Amino acid sequence: MSGQDQPPPQDTAATGGGRGALETALAYHQAWTSHDFERAMTYIADDIVCQAPAGALEGAEAFRGFMGPFVRSLTRSDLIAAFGDDQTAVVMYDTDTVPVSNAPGAECVTVNDGKIIHMRIIFDRLPFEQARRAARPG
Amino acid sequence: MSGQDQPPPQDTAATGGGRGALETALAYHQAWTSHDFERAMTYIADDIVCQAPAGALEGAEAFRGFMGPFVRSLTRSDLIAAFGDDQTAVVMYDTDTVPVSNAPGAECVTVNDGKIIHMRIIFDRLPFEQARRAARPG
Repeated sequence: MSGQDQPPPQDTAATGGGRGALETALAYHQAWTSHDFERAMTYIADDIVCQAPAGALEGAEAFRGFMGPFVRSLTRSDLIAAFGDDQTAVVMYDTDTVPVSNAPGAECVTVNDGKIIHMRIIFDRLPFEQARRAARPG
Repeated sequence: MSGQDQPPPQDTAATGGGRGALETALAYHQAWTSHDFERAMTYIADDIVCQAPAGALEGAEAFRGFMGPFVRSLTRSDLIAAFGDDQTAVVMYDTDTVPVSNAPGAECVTVNDGKIIHMRIIFDRLPFEQARRAARPG
């Protein structure tokens, strides 16, 4: 199952064992930042637990409901930093979205068998809340 | 000024050249999470640029005005993840503060000569804004 000391195989399924967490985190990141959210979801475990600013999300469908609308609103992304080891990775990025520009985020993910089983995601909800308030009639 | 290939010296000043960014980031983190903010400030370059949620802060005094009040309100902290290389490090943590519990943050720092010269810090301002609003009379 290992293979960490060899170059990663090209063009193979991303869900095989033995891939480092950083590789999975970056594959997930690359997919959603290129608007391929369905491909991004292939890196998400069915029983993912995501600790988001508003609270914990349990399971891939709850995660999809949280992350999908954000990805649909994405107009720009830049990777700021990415580090990791076999099990854990941290990815920080900046984004522009339709409602909010300069909306950075940071994720710490735990990966098992090529799937993200836990994500802690940090971002500033305040400008999104302000944009919602501004869009509200009256 | 190098020395990256040697083990870090023990019990020496933290501001010498050649220390990895992660070591400096963690020394800074350890200092402020133990409420030793003046020691934390010894890892901050005079001309630091800090990209915070509300905008850029330029210089150590602006940084002190931003981070000092937060540190004074800290009641708990846990390190979630820390990774880095010679120049860049990412540190993610959770905190409780007097106004807000479960207030995580993520920092990506650039280090030069043992001092943090750039910091991108991400946290959720919304619960802090809500706490301020709730505390306001009327």
